[in-house]
Amino acid sequence: MEDCIFCRIIRGEIPSIKVYEDESVFAFMDINPISTGHTLVIPKAHAGNIWEIASEDLSALHIASKTIAHALKRALDPDGIACLQLNGEAVGQVVMHYHFHLVPRIKGAPPLPVTQWELKSGNMDEIKSVAQRITAALQ
Amino acid sequence: MEDCIFCRIIRGEIPSIKVYEDESVFAFMDINPISTGHTLVIPKAHAGNIWEIASEDLSALHIASKTIAHALKRALDPDGIACLQLNGEAVGQVVMHYHFHLVPRIKGAPPLPVTQWELKSGNMDEIKSVAQRITAALQ
Repeated sequence: MEDCIFCRIIRGEIPSIKVYEDESVFAFMDINPISTGHTLVIPKAHAGNIWEIASEDLSALHIASKTIAHALKRALDPDGIACLQLNGEAVGQVVMHYHFHLVPRIKGAPPLPVTQWELKSGNMDEIKSVAQRITAALQ
Repeated sequence: MEDCIFCRIIRGEIPSIKVYEDESVFAFMDINPISTGHTLVIPKAHAGNIWEIASEDLSALHIASKTIAHALKRALDPDGIACLQLNGEAVGQVVMHYHFHLVPRIKGAPPLPVTQWELKSGNMDEIKSVAQRITAALQ
């Protein structure tokens, strides 16, 4: 897409720190990292979000992300990796091109902001009623 | 795996609120939801994390997650959906069976905890040096 910043990165019109590329996937360092090693994995074909991305690109992207997660482990020996993918401005998506964040937590580093939430039991009746709506929408 | 709580859910030994199932993927409601509609998508074949999951299961799981994301949109009309997948106790993974969280943000609801972080520019030299280590580990 002409004006999409990630499409421009893929075309080389905007510089990036690339770590991986194949026929349909591109990966580069996030320059506003949550942690050391924060990497973004994106499809080369423009797609805004999980609703738009082609299934074959989604497949290729997640298989490439697994390869990159192995590399992050070998390169940085993190305690763990959080993966995050946001869909919609209302949940904090800033660039409207599907991107999968790989966020390693380096040994001794503080907890990652994306993992900060409290486990609280939900209302089971409400959960069941929502599940029925989801199941119906899957038909 | 014998004692894995998610494997037991798949086998029906522990009840769950299922919303989707196919040959290799199972999806059910999180009973400690971050938001209304919080759904977990898991591979039927036990795998602890992104490093262990078979590529074909990863593919099937993310294609199923896209289908479920469409259903969440139709069923709940959220403002957006955050997707999260944690690898390692140090990043908050509680059940050691790969699971992909789909967390809708319902219209008017407060920001999701997983999306609460500040955008801060990183140190470019440090990012480049880390990228070299990742690239080397990809060879």
